[in-house]
Amino acid sequence: MSETFCVEPIGWVRCERTEVLDDGWDTIPATIELDTDRFNADAFLGLEGFSYVEIIFLFDQVEEDKIVTGARHPRGRKTWPKTGIFAQRGKNRPNRLGATICRVVSVYKTRLRLAGLDAIDGTPVIDIKPVMSGFLPRGDVAEPDWAKEIMSSYW
Amino acid sequence: MSETFCVEPIGWVRCERTEVLDDGWDTIPATIELDTDRFNADAFLGLEGFSYVEIIFLFDQVEEDKIVTGARHPRGRKTWPKTGIFAQRGKNRPNRLGATICRVVSVYKTRLRLAGLDAIDGTPVIDIKPVMSGFLPRGDVAEPDWAKEIMSSYW
Repeated sequence: MSETFCVEPIGWVRCERTEVLDDGWDTIPATIELDTDRFNADAFLGLEGFSYVEIIFLFDQVEEDKIVTGARHPRGRKTWPKTGIFAQRGKNRPNRLGATICRVVSVYKTRLRLAGLDAIDGTPVIDIKPVMSGFLPRGDVAEPDWAKEIMSSYW
Repeated sequence: MSETFCVEPIGWVRCERTEVLDDGWDTIPATIELDTDRFNADAFLGLEGFSYVEIIFLFDQVEEDKIVTGARHPRGRKTWPKTGIFAQRGKNRPNRLGATICRVVSVYKTRLRLAGLDAIDGTPVIDIKPVMSGFLPRGDVAEPDWAKEIMSSYW
């Protein structure tokens, strides 16, 4: 039996992309603005010592009835194998969470400027974690061919 | 102004560690069991083609009034600098989310066996994403000294 949990945005994405697109994310600089009702600059203290952070956010534009719980072809492309929703990173997933490692450009008060955040303007952010080398894969990363191909124009 | 969102566990962690401890996680094999009321083996189709997955889970044992929104010394250790909650990975954080990259040991129906999951028995899992090389840091990972030291006995 399942219990639900509530999460509250800690901030929001501000960027120039307002439309959901698959590719070209590196061209869009993004800022996360913390919710200043709940946080001040202390929440980011020392963050500039890290070159990368992981942003956990909500694909809040995905409608409930578009969520996939089984398998589908990534991006609907039939030449790629039918793949379980937990074996791909598509947005139409249970709980609609995104998690992306981004480069820290600058930290100013409650504003965090990033490169490589694949989220549109207004996206609710629910966590920010520093990337520590000890939490990265500790061996070779194997992946199917489609997972390399899907990234070819992503950034 | 902030809106809350609901997340529902997609499954739970099963492992022998029932107590929250800081270190030695690699000695504890873990299994994630999907919620079989909502998912079947299709949700994992193709997952065995990936060597690593990222598990997003809830530190559901952390009490509301223990959540830090500002800065503190990591693990309370005064020799490490006071650090913002979003510049560390400690569990007492807003929304209580954990995110850990684990090695896939095996996939069997709705069961995923993992190495290196730092979550205790019964932990609610809210997402599983395959680790794709294109989503890893695309440059050198810089981090403060404490972030290396804190990992010395972690795994």
